[in-house]
Amino acid sequence: MTVSPNPVLNTSSFPGILHATLAGSEQGLEQLSIWQQILEPGAATPPHRHDCEEVILCSAGRGELHFDGRKVSFGAHQTVCIPRNALHQLVNSGRDPLHLVAVFSKTPVEVFLPDGAPVALPWSS
Amino acid sequence: MTVSPNPVLNTSSFPGILHATLAGSEQGLEQLSIWQQILEPGAATPPHRHDCEEVILCSAGRGELHFDGRKVSFGAHQTVCIPRNALHQLVNSGRDPLHLVAVFSKTPVEVFLPDGAPVALPWSS
Repeated sequence: MTVSPNPVLNTSSFPGILHATLAGSEQGLEQLSIWQQILEPGAATPPHRHDCEEVILCSAGRGELHFDGRKVSFGAHQTVCIPRNALHQLVNSGRDPLHLVAVFSKTPVEVFLPDGAPVALPWSS
Repeated sequence: MTVSPNPVLNTSSFPGILHATLAGSEQGLEQLSIWQQILEPGAATPPHRHDCEEVILCSAGRGELHFDGRKVSFGAHQTVCIPRNALHQLVNSGRDPLHLVAVFSKTPVEVFLPDGAPVALPWSS
């Protein structure tokens, strides 16, 4: 049982993406990882997938979820559910920072590019 | 892939606990459930456990986590990690509403009293 202050979000090697890991294997978890992120205006993740489920809670800003050739908008007080292994990309489509909490059904989280290549994450997860 | 507006929190049969399920089996998830809750001042959950991991994200208010005869305080911008099957109780120990998001590594979530009796939840999870 742990109670931890949320870390300050830091810049990362992904342009325009600030990150803090709120919970994961470092807190003794085996099946959950929780990230807090801010995507600056214009920032985007690469297209990628995870071998676990992901839920994104948006608290501020406007974003787009790109998948299967589609673009679906989302914003504050909306929740995005992404099935295991579904290719997706997140884009800040607005003028303000996009504030997200991302929940994963695995820890550490693994990220794969569309060709299957693993992405080396610049943060613990 | 789903994008859903967060439901309005509703009162429940648990005194002083308002609830909304943000994500779970109804969104096609198999391994995650996410609840948003407000505990009014003085409100508390019963002592209980889950057969899955739980992470609580606190955004406002002051709470106490009771477990193993201990009381640990937490508040806004802190994160609580609760191992699988760990008995615990959440209490609003402050004067203001306690705002929480609870993440579970299972859907639907099952809740058990200390004697092992299942709790019939008044919401879908």
